[in-house]
Amino acid sequence: MKMTDIVEAINESNSIALITHINPDGDAVGSLIALMHALDKMGKSVYGYCQDDIPRSLSFLEGVKRITKPINPIEGYDLAIALDCSDRERMGDCVSIMDKAMRSANIDHHISNTYYADINIVHGNASATGEIVYELVQFLEDTGDKNMAEALYTAIVTDTGGFSFSNTSARTHRVIASLIEWGAEVSKLSNRLFKNHSLEWTRLLGEAINTLKTYHGGRVSTLYVTREMLQRVGATEEHINGMIQYGKDIAGVDLAVFFKEVDPSTTKVSFRSDSLVDVSALAQRFGGGGHKRASGCTINQPLCKAKKDTMEAIDYYFKETMK
Amino acid sequence: MKMTDIVEAINESNSIALITHINPDGDAVGSLIALMHALDKMGKSVYGYCQDDIPRSLSFLEGVKRITKPINPIEGYDLAIALDCSDRERMGDCVSIMDKAMRSANIDHHISNTYYADINIVHGNASATGEIVYELVQFLEDTGDKNMAEALYTAIVTDTGGFSFSNTSARTHRVIASLIEWGAEVSKLSNRLFKNHSLEWTRLLGEAINTLKTYHGGRVSTLYVTREMLQRVGATEEHINGMIQYGKDIAGVDLAVFFKEVDPSTTKVSFRSDSLVDVSALAQRFGGGGHKRASGCTINQPLCKAKKDTMEAIDYYFKETMK
Repeated sequence: MKMTDIVEAINESNSIALITHINPDGDAVGSLIALMHALDKMGKSVYGYCQDDIPRSLSFLEGVKRITKPINPIEGYDLAIALDCSDRERMGDCVSIMDKAMRSANIDHHISNTYYADINIVHGNASATGEIVYELVQFLEDTGDKNMAEALYTAIVTDTGGFSFSNTSARTHRVIASLIEWGAEVSKLSNRLFKNHSLEWTRLLGEAINTLKTYHGGRVSTLYVTREMLQRVGATEEHINGMIQYGKDIAGVDLAVFFKEVDPSTTKVSFRSDSLVDVSALAQRFGGGGHKRASGCTINQPLCKAKKDTMEAIDYYFKETMK
Repeated sequence: MKMTDIVEAINESNSIALITHINPDGDAVGSLIALMHALDKMGKSVYGYCQDDIPRSLSFLEGVKRITKPINPIEGYDLAIALDCSDRERMGDCVSIMDKAMRSANIDHHISNTYYADINIVHGNASATGEIVYELVQFLEDTGDKNMAEALYTAIVTDTGGFSFSNTSARTHRVIASLIEWGAEVSKLSNRLFKNHSLEWTRLLGEAINTLKTYHGGRVSTLYVTREMLQRVGATEEHINGMIQYGKDIAGVDLAVFFKEVDPSTTKVSFRSDSLVDVSALAQRFGGGGHKRASGCTINQPLCKAKKDTMEAIDYYFKETMK
């Protein structure tokens, strides 16, 4: 389907609901907000929905407070547009808003997208849904403004890991160049998004690094966080996000493993790898799942035993694959 | 002076020496290597010089081994080009190569550049010298190749802090887009440059964060590293580089201070601030210097006393500026 299909649907609609996915990230929120501003300028009645809370790190985006939870939403929007949702389930409770709308559309960059809407704009080679929304805005408006620029910059810079992941293309950088011309302030946005850690996160990082161990000649690294560590630094589970990267970013490490003590008899294990190790196979061994490069599982054992079992599975994996 | 002046000088020269600055960084090495490849393609005899060792993190760049120290260099090059050197002193021992060349040129992006060469191409609004070399390459070649692309990508991505500093412009991103089209592999380069910490660095980061303290209601953070900590994790002083950022990147922190125990009676102090605190004034109080946002000094006291003195100076600074 072509971009003009959704442009036509927007032109024919007055009330429009924008929906993004559960556990929203920068691309989810940034894409929604940018499109909201563009539709505002066209004089549409726009409503933003998300089942879950918006992360505090994104609270600076202009218009973020207009994204509400789907509690007694208006029924029968002319058009409902899902952003960054690869399937219906990703909308969580918001799916009913789409079901009750006159028409539905789906803008997404995940190749796994299930084409669940009337109009499906799925570009698997876009670095972020924000990159597709940027293109859509070109069709809708003469030019973008600073609010759209900041929202789309946020969408793209977060989904590309600061333009460092392999999904970052020449096109991605040209879009960002335009967003800077629309008024996005690079250092302000970078500071807000990437250089704004909580004291608790920083202290917990120190605690986690103190547990760093390497195995298999430096090819495997482990880190862990216990309930006691969380308490000691006043952190919560959400502070653990992304910490496995510190085990992964060590020279020579092919496989990073992170253990989180959920309670005295439950441990969550996360795996990250480069191309050499298939971590989905490792997670599956414990009933978990994921991708080749990122996976996870929950082991109903105390941390210490879960770690022992995991390391044995890794020993076995290395022996098998070395054969 | 115009880009055509240096193009003319290059066209008229056969033997060309490229010189970069002492303590070379990504922009210094990347700019030199990219220009070296471009001149190679033109059939010039090209020689690269740097007084100091090239950082190991840049050793992957194709051609890096051709950069040598100025030990008995050939005298009387047709042309010597300094890259990323704001003044003659930045060349260190390599300055004699320029002095003995028939002609000299200077390509740089520092506004403080002293225009010390025959031809001076100084663009203060370029994010990196690499951005200027990119422009020069357009004048010299039909198109760049993968080796040039990787060198220039390295130059620009390092000098912009991964496209996060305020020197990053729309133009910067358009240059990067072209470099990706020339063959730069984003995720490979990012992994090599930014996700390739040594085990020692990572362990030392944990040690340093364990010392984290905040003052003045969270506006000031301190970290320190002792000789004993370095020994415990097998790290050297170079592993300390950049660690102050973990104190600076905490939400609410306006001023980050890092103490390094040089020996039992000498302490090096580094200051980083956002726009609110002028840290050059703080460093000057102890005979040091620097800029408003980054400065440093050496205090001839044990770490513990140096920290006490520094914190008193900060107390005084806050009282004075709050008046």
